[in-house]
Amino acid sequence: MSNTTITAPKGFLAAGLHCGVKKSGNPDLALVHCPTGARAAAVFTTNAIQSAAVVICKQHITRHPIYAAVINSGNANTCTGAKGLAAAKVMCAKVGKELAVDADSVLLASTGIIGQPLPITKITAGIERAATLLSDSAAAGLNFAQAIMTTDTRPKQACRSVEIDGKTVTLAGTAKGAGMIGPNMATTICVLTTDANITKPMLGKALKAAIGNSLNRLTVDGHQSTNDTAMILASGLAANKPIKTQTEVGFRRFSKALTELCVDLAKQMALDAEGATRMFTVQIKGAVSKAEAFKAARAVADYDLVKCAVHGADPNWGRIICAVGSCGVKLNPNRLCCKIGDTWVFRNGKPVAFDAQKVSAVIAQKEHTITVELNVGKHSDFCFGCDLGRDYVTINADYHT
Amino acid sequence: MSNTTITAPKGFLAAGLHCGVKKSGNPDLALVHCPTGARAAAVFTTNAIQSAAVVICKQHITRHPIYAAVINSGNANTCTGAKGLAAAKVMCAKVGKELAVDADSVLLASTGIIGQPLPITKITAGIERAATLLSDSAAAGLNFAQAIMTTDTRPKQACRSVEIDGKTVTLAGTAKGAGMIGPNMATTICVLTTDANITKPMLGKALKAAIGNSLNRLTVDGHQSTNDTAMILASGLAANKPIKTQTEVGFRRFSKALTELCVDLAKQMALDAEGATRMFTVQIKGAVSKAEAFKAARAVADYDLVKCAVHGADPNWGRIICAVGSCGVKLNPNRLCCKIGDTWVFRNGKPVAFDAQKVSAVIAQKEHTITVELNVGKHSDFCFGCDLGRDYVTINADYHT
Repeated sequence: MSNTTITAPKGFLAAGLHCGVKKSGNPDLALVHCPTGARAAAVFTTNAIQSAAVVICKQHITRHPIYAAVINSGNANTCTGAKGLAAAKVMCAKVGKELAVDADSVLLASTGIIGQPLPITKITAGIERAATLLSDSAAAGLNFAQAIMTTDTRPKQACRSVEIDGKTVTLAGTAKGAGMIGPNMATTICVLTTDANITKPMLGKALKAAIGNSLNRLTVDGHQSTNDTAMILASGLAANKPIKTQTEVGFRRFSKALTELCVDLAKQMALDAEGATRMFTVQIKGAVSKAEAFKAARAVADYDLVKCAVHGADPNWGRIICAVGSCGVKLNPNRLCCKIGDTWVFRNGKPVAFDAQKVSAVIAQKEHTITVELNVGKHSDFCFGCDLGRDYVTINADYHT
Repeated sequence: MSNTTITAPKGFLAAGLHCGVKKSGNPDLALVHCPTGARAAAVFTTNAIQSAAVVICKQHITRHPIYAAVINSGNANTCTGAKGLAAAKVMCAKVGKELAVDADSVLLASTGIIGQPLPITKITAGIERAATLLSDSAAAGLNFAQAIMTTDTRPKQACRSVEIDGKTVTLAGTAKGAGMIGPNMATTICVLTTDANITKPMLGKALKAAIGNSLNRLTVDGHQSTNDTAMILASGLAANKPIKTQTEVGFRRFSKALTELCVDLAKQMALDAEGATRMFTVQIKGAVSKAEAFKAARAVADYDLVKCAVHGADPNWGRIICAVGSCGVKLNPNRLCCKIGDTWVFRNGKPVAFDAQKVSAVIAQKEHTITVELNVGKHSDFCFGCDLGRDYVTINADYHT
């Protein structure tokens, strides 16, 4: 298909533009509209401090139908008190007015710097302009994807099609986030669209599962933003028989496609993480529980010394073992094993002689897998991580308030 | 006093030299000897994977008296299996032979790269030479301090004197560690000496308290090494009345001096952390428990985005609030307050107007304090941290196996 943006599924119009929040002049306001009304679901940050946008979006997501979602970048509208809450409501009201829908049928998200007042006048002027630019073109979808970016160097977009009841169902999405990314809602902002005909509860279940196996498996710096939001809007225009239960084939197909799409976005995010040059998957096997497997996977992926070693393409497996050893999961030191790519580097508690140059070349790829076998149980889990480059520091030391 | 090294307390001889573990030619073998025999105590890493040196040192520390401690840098002797354990025993046996004491009256520690065989022949030759160089001079103490360094750019040493029973009791110490530093035994290697006359159990209690309030309050990258060891040797030659209980004045004075000394070492470590240019203290107030206060303090000090902001001298308090919000401690969003130095930047859940240039100048100092008030309880705790500089990445991406 030629359009692989969020306007690819039937029933969606999008726009993205610069309204003046960002000093750089880059796009900072994104609007998506489903004129026929959409079923919607969302997952949010669990940070105790939450953006005013998250507070309001949590109220609106319970409604049906949802007609639009508006996102601004460059300002998080977090730690902004009552004024911030009022500004978030004004954003929805303005979209409602421009699109002639209820304010509470509009979802929203904000991303950017914390603790500064939202320049609401600029944003409402931007919303007015965005409403006139709404289009189902691929260009409009790309504008949207660009307008939610913060320190991202490129937009992240993914699209999938799946056959359900003889109908082609399309799913598409865009995500932003290049730092402050940790599991427990790993992304800052992710907007997904689909023309699937699916009930709101089933949409919620599919979203939760997809995020759980993709964005929630990604860690850049172990951080969890105050603004994390992933939302999905389903227009139903693919005209498949409505997906109502988790057991039906349609649900499984939809869910699988949504997970693949989100994994695609998660990997794009890892590869564009602040200062990152490559990504890796940490696979933990033989844990006493899935939770412990994930804890260990995350410990390795979050371990700065491992991330630096990956940056230097250095097969320094001692740091991997150190990370696993210090994270508190049950393991058998004498049966502990570690593999980088397909090469064993540590087996049953002892170093293995290996070709360091060959393994270094594996690490130097865009993507590789680190496997650790704890050998105390039957459970596995994984985590996506990326290397830690000098530019992470440059970006985050110079990103001034 | 002119000698402020570990040979300052009465009864200690030290040596440090290059025996060939480090390719750089830098000193890599350190030996301290107490000819009259010392009472000793130690604390160790809780990492599930432990160096052979830690395994053996844990056995020997139960003994009395202790006559010596030997430390090599450049190789961790970790993940080295049965050969590693044998090598650790050989180290102690060789020291025992040279000093004519039992092998199990010798403590040891190793620090450096994980997973490579210890070059034991070089080390035993080094021990033989070190034994002939033992001296109570300040130069010998400095040699010792230099020989335990890995990526440290300078030795860390501290010395205190305290009057107990009309006698001058001297305490001294050296520590290494510039990366892979997190609480739960924060340092890699710390060697302390004193001429205090104090029982072994009281020495252990004083050490635990001192480390708990100093090295265990320091985080550079949240990592916990497989080799962390802090040990103290007490010669008793100050001839004070033996310290036997925690309630006596002598214990309190000794304990206070030891804590101050360890805080001094911890701050030196923070300032010399890999890539760091400055340090900071995170003070958490109003937590529901001391454990939650520490958890929040550590969350802030470990937060890469906060560390980058400190590196850029940027008063980006939003990242501090985000760190506190995501660490899972109880807090009141509407009463949350944050102070950088003496300047309130966030009060009762709302931003406060402040002079950004003035606060930036505070952060740019060698040392400043970040205070966060959770306002849900009466408990406080703190953590030391340092900034995250580009050189952390350079050092750890290029430190090749």
